[in-house]
Amino acid sequence: MPHLSFEYSPGLEARADLPAFAAAMRDAMAATGLFPLGGIRVRGHRADVCLVADGGPHQFMDISVRLGAGRSLEARKAAAEAIYAAAEAFLKPCAAESAFALSLEMREIDPELSIKRFNTLHEHLQARGEA
Amino acid sequence: MPHLSFEYSPGLEARADLPAFAAAMRDAMAATGLFPLGGIRVRGHRADVCLVADGGPHQFMDISVRLGAGRSLEARKAAAEAIYAAAEAFLKPCAAESAFALSLEMREIDPELSIKRFNTLHEHLQARGEA
Amino acid sequence: MPHLSFEYSPGLEARADLPAFAAAMRDAMAATGLFPLGGIRVRGHRADVCLVADGGPHQFMDISVRLGAGRSLEARKAAAEAIYAAAEAFLKPCAAESAFALSLEMREIDPELSIKRFNTLHEHLQARGEA
Repeated sequence: MPHLSFEYSPGLEARADLPAFAAAMRDAMAATGLFPLGGIRVRGHRADVCLVADGGPHQFMDISVRLGAGRSLEARKAAAEAIYAAAEAFLKPCAAESAFALSLEMREIDPELSIKRFNTLHEHLQARGEA
Repeated sequence: MPHLSFEYSPGLEARADLPAFAAAMRDAMAATGLFPLGGIRVRGHRADVCLVADGGPHQFMDISVRLGAGRSLEARKAAAEAIYAAAEAFLKPCAAESAFALSLEMREIDPELSIKRFNTLHEHLQARGEA
Repeated sequence: MPHLSFEYSPGLEARADLPAFAAAMRDAMAATGLFPLGGIRVRGHRADVCLVADGGPHQFMDISVRLGAGRSLEARKAAAEAIYAAAEAFLKPCAAESAFALSLEMREIDPELSIKRFNTLHEHLQARGEA
């Protein structure tokens, strides 16, 4: 049940193709081999109010990745790096016009206090042979 | 000070009555007996960018519940289950038209690093006899 | 890499000058001396769906502060208090018209599972002599 949720500064959607960015994030997550495709949910939330540093026309993206418990720290660190590197490559051109800050944090979901049983994605993908 | 915040895929608002969903979540939280009514804040954030699994027209909702420290693990697990069950019952019909994934994670708020003193909800409800 | 992200009830933007609020938050963070200006990213997300307590016309703001590891608990508690006090002073007038609830939670970012290397804010501020 990997979740990737990102917050970003208003205006970034005009500088970067964010649907394509979401696909790049999905691909980077799938490529790690740690996450089943049917669990990947990537989404972004545009800030309604935003002030970065001195209030200049800077842009930011802050990525949060949450994943089920059970992977080793090494595997998680490698996955964080792979996802970050893909985001960095995608967004690097955005730093040409203004200052830019990209951050990522990964954390495990507590298996005792999380529930995910209602999920028809896996069977849906299986029916299409994509699982 | 229980918070329930959910992220959801664009378009879900056309398939489910989300204000009624928020009320169902509030009711489920209140019914656990763990949360004072004056502390319950339910809100939802529609994703501006979204890609689920293979990029098909799938829908998701991801619920985050945060609550003050001090309840037993058993009480928290039961509350998570009760809230999830209410959400599942409400959203089940959404899975008829497309794949759907519902997830919930609960976590405790660190009492050392949280502040909530400015809250006039309790006195407001008391004045109305709803506390 | 301090992040301050807040969620708020719809309509609050008509009662409070939220861009000025964001600046007040940035100032409060900078004044703690714990955070380099080039790392501060303040943003707010308006709820698309919202239900507070009994469903009355109440307003809320919920602030999440995330900061890098390494500061003492005492320093973090003092910073949380300073930021909360600034938010409280700013938003106090909002409680005149309806019930209001302000909450803040601070937490540390796991240094092992976070990455922030792509950040041109520091050099940008340095070039302007603001770092």
